Amino acid sequence: MTLRYERLAQDGVARRGRLHTAHGAVNTPAFMPVGTAATVKGMWPEQVKATGAEIILGNTYHLMLRPGAERVASLGGLHKFMNWPGPILTDSGGFQVMSLSELRKIDEDGVTFRSHVDGSKHHLTPERSIEIQHLLDANVTMAFDECTPFPAEAPVAAESMHRSMRWAERCKAAFKDRPGYGLFGIVQGSVYPELRRESSEWLTRIGYDGYAIGGLAVGEGQEMMFRMIEATIPFLPEDRPRYLMGVGRPLDIVGAVQRGIDMFDCVMPTRSGRTGQAFTRRGTINIRNARHAHDPRPIDADCSCPVCRDYARGYLHHLFKAEEMLGPMLLTAHNLQHYQTLMAGLRGAIEAGRLDAFAAEVAEAESRGDIDPLPDPLAAPT
Amino acid sequence: MTLRYERLAQDGVARRGRLHTAHGAVNTPAFMPVGTAATVKGMWPEQVKATGAEIILGNTYHLMLRPGAERVASLGGLHKFMNWPGPILTDSGGFQVMSLSELRKIDEDGVTFRSHVDGSKHHLTPERSIEIQHLLDANVTMAFDECTPFPAEAPVAAESMHRSMRWAERCKAAFKDRPGYGLFGIVQGSVYPELRRESSEWLTRIGYDGYAIGGLAVGEGQEMMFRMIEATIPFLPEDRPRYLMGVGRPLDIVGAVQRGIDMFDCVMPTRSGRTGQAFTRRGTINIRNARHAHDPRPIDADCSCPVCRDYARGYLHHLFKAEEMLGPMLLTAHNLQHYQTLMAGLRGAIEAGRLDAFAAEVAEAESRGDIDPLPDPLAAPT
Repeated sequence: MTLRYERLAQDGVARRGRLHTAHGAVNTPAFMPVGTAATVKGMWPEQVKATGAEIILGNTYHLMLRPGAERVASLGGLHKFMNWPGPILTDSGGFQVMSLSELRKIDEDGVTFRSHVDGSKHHLTPERSIEIQHLLDANVTMAFDECTPFPAEAPVAAESMHRSMRWAERCKAAFKDRPGYGLFGIVQGSVYPELRRESSEWLTRIGYDGYAIGGLAVGEGQEMMFRMIEATIPFLPEDRPRYLMGVGRPLDIVGAVQRGIDMFDCVMPTRSGRTGQAFTRRGTINIRNARHAHDPRPIDADCSCPVCRDYARGYLHHLFKAEEMLGPMLLTAHNLQHYQTLMAGLRGAIEAGRLDAFAAEVAEAESRGDIDPLPDPLAAPT
Repeated sequence: MTLRYERLAQDGVARRGRLHTAHGAVNTPAFMPVGTAATVKGMWPEQVKATGAEIILGNTYHLMLRPGAERVASLGGLHKFMNWPGPILTDSGGFQVMSLSELRKIDEDGVTFRSHVDGSKHHLTPERSIEIQHLLDANVTMAFDECTPFPAEAPVAAESMHRSMRWAERCKAAFKDRPGYGLFGIVQGSVYPELRRESSEWLTRIGYDGYAIGGLAVGEGQEMMFRMIEATIPFLPEDRPRYLMGVGRPLDIVGAVQRGIDMFDCVMPTRSGRTGQAFTRRGTINIRNARHAHDPRPIDADCSCPVCRDYARGYLHHLFKAEEMLGPMLLTAHNLQHYQTLMAGLRGAIEAGRLDAFAAEVAEAESRGDIDPLPDPLAAPT
């Protein structure tokens, strides 16, 4: 193994750990902001770091199409290219090639598809995906897997999972070991506990630096997602990090950490921020709503981010109504810091052995809903 | 007079000065980034300040329509609203009401128009413009003037200028003196030296904290603009700052400083940055051009901005091709710092008594044109 993972504390099956990469350490449980096309949208990298993020995610599919993996390599690799000197995880392209590309054809060798950018034809295999992630200089490389459709009948899910496992073996063979770099396998098996177990055991036999759970957060619901995590974790090695892909909302993350997950990524804080949705301890608000137009209060009075320190809801509302870039920029920064603050809280709670109490507090605060609106001082007297 | 202006050095008619406002001092010659709708587009205020900017410009026309001057006042005034604690100058709305609004009707009282935002009907007078700028809490308030069409025959230009002068008198009467706040008159007169002189003398008789030159940079060309500055400056008081509105390109600014101008504003660095045009000491480049796709060099090797420190042209090219927000954000930051570095150079040159030599150096560097392209390391051998 080439990625060192320390377990620092445990609370139930939840773990407080640290993953050591060639570009620095990552405290877990960790949330990875998504930097699809070599940028976390609307954020300078220094600002991403200032939210508390220690690792970001890049997308193999997007970067292979534009500007091209060889181009990124010729410009010094992804860290230098995008000015993010810290750890980077890249996904394998398996998910995006199914959800974004056109005219896909899958066979045992890999996937042939047309680019959604310019219609050009591409062939992506486990070996090429690993090669691309090497060219990008990813600290954590993800195995190339087949994205099982949802819902899928058990035989279809099994066949798809088996192909992903065969591809995972090819990824392991193609991966070049280097200190501070590692390869994660991805557990598949849709909503079938037996398939999840088979996949976990298969991957564990091969041996990876870490284990991801894929194919969830696709519409199965939180309860089913938690059941699938519970059906997987017992069959993964305890001394390796576990990554729940594409999850999620704050309470999804809290519940997954309680069930033994160490790493997360999700577009939610960034994508929501761009459309005017802000996360608060008391749930989400849509800053475009007229009730915020005259509100001098911050998004979240308990948030220590620079947006809540310096800006009123009324100003943020104005930026979105005027379609100013700064609106999405500020809400993205706030949302990312909200997520990182949650992760710091989870890490502290595990260390203190009070994770369940912390989880209950987060759920209780969210259930209260947003603060009461203030009257508009400019409203005509009635 | 309520705005103190110090003259620290002089080189020919060019001046190195300092304008003291209730929100801080402004070293002149100064360039003011444009923050139309209570935001310098794509920039956090801290980042605007980091470029070296000490004062920004806000737009009365835009802010009166959205979110409304009373709204800004109820949220603490423009400084607090947009988190810019430094000095702010607001234009009067005179220019935008003519260029942006619909169904304008002008008479001696003021201008009636429909909003370009929602079609609502508004009436703007010298008195209301001053009231709005007070509500915004502008440190420098601009007189409300009539925007003379260009080109205009001399009698039309004279009539328009005379109305602007009568309006300037009403603005002076409506302006509330407070320490650290001031009112600037605006010289009009199109391209007619005699009208410029008459307008300058008229305003000087009334007496303002500063004097702007309006109605230039509207298509008359640099040579005519310089001639109009020369026809104006001798008739303005030496102990007050002079502001050339809406100018301009770097060599426009250099030439205007050589002719006695102290303050500038222009959308060029911000608007150009959003479309991919970057300023360098050797002229402008369009980062979208394919020649930059593989270039590991910064926009300008002699620039000390964080964009030139941390990013290759190849990355910036990628951001624009992928339509990522960070592209406009980074180029805006670079361009604004380029402008502020130019202003710092002008101030230093005046102090050193070598302004003409500095101006010649800037012109010579710009005439050289961009650095030679590099071969693409990924290009197929021919």
